[in-house]
Formats: sequence, C-alpha cells, structure tokens
Amino acid sequence: MKEIRVALIGHQFMGVAHSNAYRNAAMWTGLPVKITMKCLCAKDTMDNLNAFAARYGWESCETDWHKVVKRDDVDLISIAAPNFLHKEIAIEAAKNGKHILCEKPLANDLADSKEMLEAVKKAGVRNCCGFSYRFTPSLALARQLVMEGRIGKIYHVFVRYAQDWLTNPNDGMVWRLNKKIAGSGSLGDLSAHSVDATRFVTGLSFKEVCGNLQTLVKERPMDSNNPNGPNDKVTVDDVAQFLVNFEGGAVGCYESTRFATGRKNYNTIEVNGEKGSLVWNFEDQNYLLFYDNQPSPKEAGFKKINVTHDIHPYKGGWWPQGHGIGYADSFVIEVAEFIRSIVEDKPFNPDFEDGVKSQEILEAVEKSSANRTWIQL
Amino acid sequence: MKEIRVALIGHQFMGVAHSNAYRNAAMWTGLPVKITMKCLCAKDTMDNLNAFAARYGWESCETDWHKVVKRDDVDLISIAAPNFLHKEIAIEAAKNGKHILCEKPLANDLADSKEMLEAVKKAGVRNCCGFSYRFTPSLALARQLVMEGRIGKIYHVFVRYAQDWLTNPNDGMVWRLNKKIAGSGSLGDLSAHSVDATRFVTGLSFKEVCGNLQTLVKERPMDSNNPNGPNDKVTVDDVAQFLVNFEGGAVGCYESTRFATGRKNYNTIEVNGEKGSLVWNFEDQNYLLFYDNQPSPKEAGFKKINVTHDIHPYKGGWWPQGHGIGYADSFVIEVAEFIRSIVEDKPFNPDFEDGVKSQEILEAVEKSSANRTWIQL
Amino acid sequence: MKEIRVALIGHQFMGVAHSNAYRNAAMWTGLPVKITMKCLCAKDTMDNLNAFAARYGWESCETDWHKVVKRDDVDLISIAAPNFLHKEIAIEAAKNGKHILCEKPLANDLADSKEMLEAVKKAGVRNCCGFSYRFTPSLALARQLVMEGRIGKIYHVFVRYAQDWLTNPNDGMVWRLNKKIAGSGSLGDLSAHSVDATRFVTGLSFKEVCGNLQTLVKERPMDSNNPNGPNDKVTVDDVAQFLVNFEGGAVGCYESTRFATGRKNYNTIEVNGEKGSLVWNFEDQNYLLFYDNQPSPKEAGFKKINVTHDIHPYKGGWWPQGHGIGYADSFVIEVAEFIRSIVEDKPFNPDFEDGVKSQEILEAVEKSSANRTWIQL
Amino acid sequence: MKEIRVALIGHQFMGVAHSNAYRNAAMWTGLPVKITMKCLCAKDTMDNLNAFAARYGWESCETDWHKVVKRDDVDLISIAAPNFLHKEIAIEAAKNGKHILCEKPLANDLADSKEMLEAVKKAGVRNCCGFSYRFTPSLALARQLVMEGRIGKIYHVFVRYAQDWLTNPNDGMVWRLNKKIAGSGSLGDLSAHSVDATRFVTGLSFKEVCGNLQTLVKERPMDSNNPNGPNDKVTVDDVAQFLVNFEGGAVGCYESTRFATGRKNYNTIEVNGEKGSLVWNFEDQNYLLFYDNQPSPKEAGFKKINVTHDIHPYKGGWWPQGHGIGYADSFVIEVAEFIRSIVEDKPFNPDFEDGVKSQEILEAVEKSSANRTWIQL
Repeated sequence: MKEIRVALIGHQFMGVAHSNAYRNAAMWTGLPVKITMKCLCAKDTMDNLNAFAARYGWESCETDWHKVVKRDDVDLISIAAPNFLHKEIAIEAAKNGKHILCEKPLANDLADSKEMLEAVKKAGVRNCCGFSYRFTPSLALARQLVMEGRIGKIYHVFVRYAQDWLTNPNDGMVWRLNKKIAGSGSLGDLSAHSVDATRFVTGLSFKEVCGNLQTLVKERPMDSNNPNGPNDKVTVDDVAQFLVNFEGGAVGCYESTRFATGRKNYNTIEVNGEKGSLVWNFEDQNYLLFYDNQPSPKEAGFKKINVTHDIHPYKGGWWPQGHGIGYADSFVIEVAEFIRSIVEDKPFNPDFEDGVKSQEILEAVEKSSANRTWIQL
Repeated sequence: MKEIRVALIGHQFMGVAHSNAYRNAAMWTGLPVKITMKCLCAKDTMDNLNAFAARYGWESCETDWHKVVKRDDVDLISIAAPNFLHKEIAIEAAKNGKHILCEKPLANDLADSKEMLEAVKKAGVRNCCGFSYRFTPSLALARQLVMEGRIGKIYHVFVRYAQDWLTNPNDGMVWRLNKKIAGSGSLGDLSAHSVDATRFVTGLSFKEVCGNLQTLVKERPMDSNNPNGPNDKVTVDDVAQFLVNFEGGAVGCYESTRFATGRKNYNTIEVNGEKGSLVWNFEDQNYLLFYDNQPSPKEAGFKKINVTHDIHPYKGGWWPQGHGIGYADSFVIEVAEFIRSIVEDKPFNPDFEDGVKSQEILEAVEKSSANRTWIQL
Repeated sequence: MKEIRVALIGHQFMGVAHSNAYRNAAMWTGLPVKITMKCLCAKDTMDNLNAFAARYGWESCETDWHKVVKRDDVDLISIAAPNFLHKEIAIEAAKNGKHILCEKPLANDLADSKEMLEAVKKAGVRNCCGFSYRFTPSLALARQLVMEGRIGKIYHVFVRYAQDWLTNPNDGMVWRLNKKIAGSGSLGDLSAHSVDATRFVTGLSFKEVCGNLQTLVKERPMDSNNPNGPNDKVTVDDVAQFLVNFEGGAVGCYESTRFATGRKNYNTIEVNGEKGSLVWNFEDQNYLLFYDNQPSPKEAGFKKINVTHDIHPYKGGWWPQGHGIGYADSFVIEVAEFIRSIVEDKPFNPDFEDGVKSQEILEAVEKSSANRTWIQL
Repeated sequence: MKEIRVALIGHQFMGVAHSNAYRNAAMWTGLPVKITMKCLCAKDTMDNLNAFAARYGWESCETDWHKVVKRDDVDLISIAAPNFLHKEIAIEAAKNGKHILCEKPLANDLADSKEMLEAVKKAGVRNCCGFSYRFTPSLALARQLVMEGRIGKIYHVFVRYAQDWLTNPNDGMVWRLNKKIAGSGSLGDLSAHSVDATRFVTGLSFKEVCGNLQTLVKERPMDSNNPNGPNDKVTVDDVAQFLVNFEGGAVGCYESTRFATGRKNYNTIEVNGEKGSLVWNFEDQNYLLFYDNQPSPKEAGFKKINVTHDIHPYKGGWWPQGHGIGYADSFVIEVAEFIRSIVEDKPFNPDFEDGVKSQEILEAVEKSSANRTWIQL
C-alpha cells in the first residue's frame, strides 16, 4: 500500500479541519493509501504544539516552516497558516518537490497567487486550492445535474453567503477586519467560496463585474471588554455585493456579508435554467432542491433531495440514506480525493489555477467598487 | 351610512382584482360605508362588458373613459387600464374632482407620473397608487416590527421578485415584452413592488443605485403556435438587477426576473438589522419569518409567524388564526383602507407621491444600466 | 340562465363562510347560474339579522326556520345552525323538496344522521355534507394522484389535525366543551375532517378502529374573567387518538387535539404507498408534497407543488400560478360544485351518505375508547 | 492522563459507528483520557478482521468473544454484535469486571435485559445502553428546555420514526425480518428509539399502552435476484403503532415503520405543553423547533434553532455556529460522555436500567397488539 506523508502548517480553525481530514480520510472513504501525519508546524509554544499534535495525531512538531518544507520524510504540505504567508510557503514547498494543499484564498492578491501557480507548474507538483465546499455531496450533485443537461441553458445565478458574527458594533477588532492581514473582508472570506461554487456548478465564465464593497461599522473598540476605550479602524469590507454578466448571456447577483442577523453559515447558490433550477444552502448541507420543468406542471415543484444515497456523489457520505454528514466531512472527502489524484496520477480540481481564477474575479470586483464602474475580465 | 360610488376602467387581470375588492370590501372588513359599483369601462364589445359587469356586480357599462370621469354619480375612479393610459385618465379624473385609485406603475415614465401627482394635488382629491402588497398582513407586520425598533439599525436588505413564465424561448411575443406598451420589463412590473416594499417596510431612502438590465431571450416568435415563423424583437429587460446605497449607510441588493424556473410569484424581502432580521415571501403570504437576537443565542432562531391572529395588522384577515387569506384579499384591504381614509379624511399611503418616488428609483436604475455607472437620487 | 334561490340558517362562523360562498361562487368560478340569496334565518334580534343580511347580501331575514323551509321562493337550504338542530331542519327541508347543504357533522349521533340520509333519499333532493376541505385544490390533487396510481398500493396513512386554542387551563367554558350541545370534542370537530379526508384521498375502507379519547383539562372556570370563581365540568374529549386497520391491509394512525401549542389549523394527512407518498397540511393550503419513487433515487425527493396552476383541480383557484387562495375559497368551490351538480343533474360528493360514513367511524372510535377495545366497522 | 482500553465486539453498521467514536472521541471533545483501541472481535476471516482493524485503528483482532471479555488489558467492552448475543456477552463481561457499552435493544426480550441489568449491578461495572440520539445536541436541547420549564405541563407527545427501505415487495428477505434473529421489526429497531427519546426529553412515565403491530408484506423472495423463486415468511412487524396514557394525564401517539416512501431516517418527536412546544426531526439533526407561547401572539411562531452554538448542549458540536455535525458525531459524544463518567465516577444515562425500561414498554406494546387490548405498565 502506498504511503503519503503529510506536514501541516497552521493549527487554528482550518488546522483542525485539516488534521481531522488526514486522520480519517482513509477510514471513511476506504482510500487504499496509508496517510502518515508526520509533522505539525505553527507559531506557538512547544507545549501547545505537542498538546495539539497528541490530540489530533501528528507525530512531531516544528515551529519553523522553512525546515518543514525541506524534510525528506514529507510528501505533502498542507497550508493552513495565515493568508499572507501562503505564497512564501507554497513556493518553497514547490521548490522542494512537495505536493501542496493550500487553503483558500491562495494569496491576498492576484499577483501573488499567480506566482504560486507558476511555482507549482514549474515544479510539477500536485496542487489543491482548498475550496472544500466542492466536496459536499449536495453541491457536487448540483454540478452533476447541470453537466447532464438537467437544467438546460442557464439564465441566471443568485448567490448569497451570509453570516452574522459582526452584527454587534461594540464587539472589538479582530485580525479579519484588518486589511493588511486579511487582505479583504467578506469578499475574500465568503465571496471567494461563492465565486468558486459558481464556476464549479455552472461552468460559466465571468465576463464583467460591477461591485459595491461597504464597511457598515467603520470603527470598533480595540478591546471588546472595554467598549468605551479607544477605537480602531475597520479597513475591510463588511459586505460585498456584485452584479455579473457571464460569457453567453447569463447574469448573476452576489452578496456576502457578516452582518445578516440570524444567518449562521448561509452559503447559498441558486441556478435557474431553461429546463430546471437548483437551490443549495449549506445550512442544510445534506439537501439539494431541484425543480425540473420537463414533466407536466401538474406535478412540478422543488424537490428536496436528501443527498445521502449511495448513488450520489461521494456516495452521499458513508451511512445508509438519511444519516447525514457534517461540516468536517467535506474536508475528509477533499483530502481523500486529492491524495487519490496524487497516487493515481489523475487530474484534480480545484487546483491553484482555480484559485487564481477566483482571485482574478475578486480583484475585479474590488477594483470595480473602487472605480465605481464595470470591470472586464 | 355614507356611500362611495365607483367606476372601474379596465377589465383584465387587475380589473378582476379591483372588482372583487369593491364588491367585498365592506363585507370582509365591516367598513361602515356603502360601496356602489356604478360603472365598468373598458375597450371591448358591449356584450363582453355586460357579461363582465353581471359577473362581478357593476351596474352599468361604458366604452369611453372620457365620459366616465365626468359622471356626476361617480366619486371614485379606479384605474386598471393599460399603463400608457394611466396619465391621461388620472389627470382628467382629478380635474373632475374624483378620488383615484391607480394601479402601479403610475405611468410609464417619471415625467408623466409627476404630472399626475401635480394634478391630484391641485385638485385636492384623494389618491392611491396600487401597491397592494402593503396590505398583506404579513408584510404590514414586517413594517410594524421595524417601526417598533425590533430590528434596530438596518444593515442591509436583500430583495428578489422572481417568476418563471418566460423561460421557454419558443413562447411567442406578448405586450409585456414591447417597450412601447409596457414601458419596461421586469423592472416596472416586478421591481416596482420591490422598491415600494423596501420603502414601506424599512423607511430607508435610496441614495444611489447601480443597475444591470438584460434581455435574456432577444427575439421570440410573433405567434406561439408557429415557433418557426417570423420573430419579433423583445425590447424590454427580462431581468433587472441593481445594487443600492441607502442614506445612512445601509446597502441593498435587488433582482427581479421572469426567468427563474420554479419561482411562481416569489416576491421576497429580507431585512437584516442590529437587533433582528425579517424574511418575507409572498409565496407563503400568511407567514413572516422573524429572528430576534435579543434573548440568549440558546433559544435564537427564525420564528415562522402565522400572521392570521386578531392582534396582527388588519386582524390578519377575517378568520380564526390558522385560516389564511389569499391573493385577492390584499386588494380588499387596500380598497377598504383607501375608502376609509376618504370617508374619515385621514392620511393614506401608498399615494401618488409614493408612486412617483418608486418611479424615480426605477428610472435611475434604467439610466444607470444604460450608462453603466452609478446614479445618484 | 338558471337561478338557484338560497336560504341560510345560522349566522356564526360557518354562516359567514356560507354567505361569502353564495355571494361569490358564480363570480369566481364562472358558474352560469344566478344564485339568489333569498333569506337569512337565525336566532337573534331583527336588528342584528338585518345588519348581517345587509353586510353579506341576504335579501330578507327570518327567525323561525320552520317557516323558511316551507318558502316557495327557496330552492336550497344551507344549514349552518348548531349541530343539534341539523336533523330536524334537514328532515323538514327534505320533506318540502328543498336541496340541502348541511355543515358537518351531519348530526351529533349516528342514528340521527341515518334518519337524515333516509329523508333526503326519500325526497329525492340533492344533498351535500359540508366537508369543505375536499374543495381545496391541493387536497383534490392528492386524491387525483392516488386515483391515477401515482402512489401505488397504500401502506399507511398518518393523520393529524391539531389546534391550540384550549391550551390555557384558565380559559373558561364554551359550548364546544359541553357534550350535550357539541356532541363530542375534537373527535367530531376535527377528526371528522380527518376521516373524510382519508376516505376522499385514498378511497380506503375502515375495517376496525381502536380509540383513546381523553379530557386533558377536566374543569374550567364558568367565567373566563373570574378564573377563581366556580368551575364547570368539561364533558367532551380534548384529544382524540385512534389506530385503524383498513380493508386490504393498510394501517392508519390518527390524532386530533385542541391542545397542540403553536399549531393553529394544522389539518394534515400523509399517505405512503408502494410508488410514492403525499403530505398535505392546510396551514400551507396552496401546496402539496409529493414523493415519487419511480425515477432514480439520485433525483428523488419530496416535491413541493404550488397547486395554483390552471392544470390543477378547480384550476388551482382563479389567478395566475403563485397567487394563492385562502380559507374562504374552499367554500366558494364547494357551493359552486354543489349547485353545478343540481343544475346539471350530476353526481355529487360529499353527500349525506359520506356524512353517515364518517359518523359511523367516529361513533366506533368513541365506543372503542369507552370499552377500551377494538371495534369492527 | 488516564487510559481506557477498549474491545469492540461486532463490525457491521454499529461496529463502524463505535470504531469511529473510540478513535475520535478524545480528539473532538478534548476529553483528557487516552482511549486505546485494544481489540476487535467478530465472526469473520482473520483477513477481513485485520483489514477492518487497520482501517479503523484497532490494535489486534479476535474471533472468540469469550476470550476478549477475559483479557486483562481491556477495561471496556463495546457490544455491537447481533442482538441475540448481547445478553451472554454482557453478563460475561460484567463478571470479568468490565465496563460495558451495549447497543440497543439491550436484548430481544425483557427477561434477558433484566438479567443483564442484574449482572452489571452485581458486578458494579459502569454501563451504557446505546441510545445514541440522546447525544444529538438538538435533542439534548429539547430535554433542557423541558427541564427548565419552558414547555410547562405536557399535554401530549406525537412521535414517529419512519424509514422507507422495505417499500418494494419484491426485495428479498433479510435477517431483520426474521423474528428469531431480530426479535421484532420496526418496534425494536425504531420505536425503541422513540420510547427512549420520550423518556429522555419529557421525563414522563408510561402508564398504559395499546398497540397495533402489522406485517404489510407477509412474504418475500428468499433471493432478491430471483423474485419469482421461493418465498420466505416475514415474521416481524413492518409497522408498529401505539397509543399511550402517561402518569399524570398526558397522552401519546406513536408510529414506526419502514414503509414510509420518501422518509429516510425520519426520527421525530413533538411535545406540546401549556407553555410551549418542541418539534425535533433527525433528518434535520442540527435544528430544533421551539414554539414559546409566553410572549404576545403577535410575535409567536415556531423558532428554528440552529443548535450549533457553544451555549448549546455538547457545545452544539465543535465548530463555529452554522457548521453542523453529522450522524457519526452522536456516537462520538456518547462515548466521550460514557468514558468521562467512568473516569470521573459520575452518574451516566442512558444505562442498562434505561434499556430495561424501554424493553418493558415495547414488550407491553407487543402483548397489547397480540391481545388486542390495553396493557398496564
């Protein structure tokens, strides 16, 4: 049995999601590959790193990623470090011939992400940009139905990714609201997923965009516990909206926000076509709504498909139908599919090129918002 | 008991809705006014007019509206004629001192609608612009909750009005697709309601808009029964999208379309604020979703309020709770409230000024789309 | 054009529903019959009766139903009086050759309802037992799908009718809680509809039942405004549950209650068969859920059919699709269909025989509950 | 750090669920205990066992459970073997001082389950009966709300557990349809969960039951691939219905079935009380519906609570709110809580006593169905 030896860089939210995925991908999917969790690397005390490694199953710890990307006993580098570090790590890892799974967004700017793409191409290493939602069986079924012609010519897409963790204006600053560190606000954090989901499900090409990025709460307390203390400026967008004209005539309408009270992880996409429609919402991740207008209107209606049957993409998970999977499981499938593509030398998407494409679109939206005009892609 | 004598001009879709409303407003709402259905006027054979009048309860018929607006035995003119006739009829009716209920849009262009407003002001007659959705108890409850501060400062609105009766590209031309007659496509037909619903529910003022109007199927058979015969050009928008910055910093995202396969009369608005959120969808007209974030997150969730209780606006209809009302009933309430405002000499909205405001916004969207830039209001 | 002259006996909740139906049936449905609202009869002051008559459109008023059933200028007697009066009125009306629409339940006991059936048969008059839900287009579609074989052999039905207006134990006595007047509690009030809906939709025959009737709040204040004053005994069931074995092997599970906090008019039926399932809920009266298991499980899911298309039973109402109808409209359709059956001399259901069948089943449930054993039908 | 050494007996559906739980409980929940997966035992070839052990993480394999329960290096025996073996294994394990987690139902009959309870009591070992749904955060929240008085006095419960994997009468026999092996059909398989969920959420005591067990398809092909070949008799119930009177006056209505086309794992419970109602459905496992009737009816409606917040039971899982968990995760929490109770010597439920209580109720239902009468508990 082949073996893939992994090093993970980063141990926050995404570090946990990656750790579980490497730990359990072979177990859940029956992937005939031994995945060895060689090394965890992050900027923290050795005590904290060791505790994390013990909990999640990493064999050893490092604090300097430069060393990690050179280790002979590592085949795959999984990048879950802060965004601004992605580029440097990925380029070094590529130079050292490592396969790379890098969290989205690839980088905080388009030029950087293109350099990263250049590097992996040159090195000939396998690469994945972590648009994990592609591996939710329900979203994968949406794509499958479009590709099979069940929706017909697409008229429009309607896409919203809404969360609500910023609605309290007295909550203090966090790194995600600082443009220098985060690159952008809801645009890079949430719309990045919306743009990739559109490309994945519909196959449409973005022709031009017109954006409106707004900061709804312009200043926040530096310290949440001292709301009357000094404020800090929010330098990213709180809400990102944009209109799209696609090649071929379809149109799109997008919004992402972290101010939609009551929406927790409302990552949604609706696709309307000549023959049918699809509605997907991650808050009900085990379902896909499908309206088929081919039979008589007498029986027409949105079908709520419980996407957990063996016949569904990725077998709809690993349980009998009706026994759904959870958020962590998309990462499990992503890792399994990426490693399968390495071992079997098969094409894999989403790769760094998909990451660059998304970045191009987001950068156009940002420019459009600044210039208050449409931008061609 | 006071009496209000009504003449109706127009006998298509809206003519039916108006007829029922005048026939039953006093019955359903207990309004202590005698509503007399004096006269029906439309361009049709006398046989057809008489049949319509007999069925819906009009006392007499006319074919020339010029005569009708001058009749001494009529107090109120209800305009449900084609849009391009609204202006002339309304101005003449006002000159003759008649109260006016005019279907939306007031007119096919802003200048016309302003003239109409001028005319009713000068004549001092009562006036109503037929944004009937305001009289759906669930939408009225949405406004009430906003006005009571239950939503707090508004961050954004997300508004979509989607239908699907144009998705088949082989369906033939209809008057609604001809700019000369209809004025515009989904913009005037559907977004007009969205814009008014926003003003009604939130009280927000539109500051600037950026629009994208697109015709998805550019030509259609002149005759549906002969799809291979000669085509006619579609001269209106099939889909209307626009972004909005409101006074005070809130943002909005709008789409209306008649190409959303599976959406029948999906007239929706979502309002997100600091203290809560509202979601309304006419396809479930007896409900309002309300998320209140003031109690503990332990118990927080979108509440599905069945808006049919006596405590609700317009008593939630006229039945015990859980026994919902239908599409026709908003018109019943609209007519009852308008007539009540006449008889009791009380303020009434939506009036022609509301009609003009909507028109201003829609015209800005249209201009924005043509110029591909933001337009200030 | 033919004319049907109607007298209504009763002017409470059902009296209002009937009045609207006679007033508007021809208007909404295009029925080519003149319906004349001759006479209203109820036990009340002449002032109150005249006010009601003026509001709803009755030409004259009476207080003695014995006179009304003998009037030569009346063709149809509509009985919306208290249940205990149904029998006497119906029998007299039949003797006088009047057609009869009688509210459900036909009578407070089976023997009485059989006498009524006997009387209308003997007199040869047309008769309708007011199971109005049959005329909800969505429930009629459910039946249509079953009859067309889309559900296949039926395995079971799961039926619940839940309301919540009795949940407060401090609310005072009302006539519906007094067995002498009301006959029974939720059993006759709500389960009567459930039993008829089952017969209507599925065509199944009840073979044996096993019931459990319980009074949850056994005493209530005689006066709601004086909760510490003297109590009165509740002598009817607050909740009625029963299990059913049908001829042919299907099974059923039933509950009706007025203690289901949050359920307003939750009149529901689910039918599961070899080829598909149906779920209907009056709180969403314009929809029917249909699961079709004939295509691939890949695309299988409950379809939410918006039953407002022209192709649907009763054209799904009278508006373009997506513009739903309300509670009152089932009565409109019921009256239109009943009058059509009179004028065109066609079969009509639900008739008094359907009323008797229901009564038989409910009486068996009651007996079963008292005897704590199964009862054969 | 303490260590708990586990042996698993059984490697089918439940064996997989248990394996994942032991592998990941400490990782997901931060439980400060080392869980060692010592040994897998099942009746299979050593090759198959080794493959399973390698995939899921067991250190060694055995085929004879008698040896396993005596091993000195094992602290906890996890029983996921066929039901008819539970008793013997559990009793031997208890004798050897092992803690025991046994899948539900404890045994195929009440007498057996009582012996098992006797054995663990006598041995003083910790015990868990695997009613895993108790560890779904949303169901645990339901209990919490009841215990906090948010529902008030309970009026009734309405409980249904529906699946659809048996609807095709041509599908062949399986062990679950053979009474000798499975003990019962949907009653033990599904209603067992319903009964336990009722006890867990409401705390109500069952006073008497009246059941109806029916076999809908009485014979099936011995071989699915040869539907015209010889048939075998189905000896268990396909559907189990029962009515309940609880101590204190509340009533209940239950159905479980594997013939409800379209219902995949529709494990549901509704609780109606004086102050509110709860509706739970495992097909939407990350949600709980809660109707609170204490505030004004103006704002009353069923709230859809996304039970994934830190404040929820078991922190609503391990992700930020809106990122749900899946079927496997209830087992993870169950195992973590059971091991925590061992290590911290704290009370734990559901234990074998809960298993016996359920069995008592199910046995009464079965007897009631056979005798066609009510049975006291």
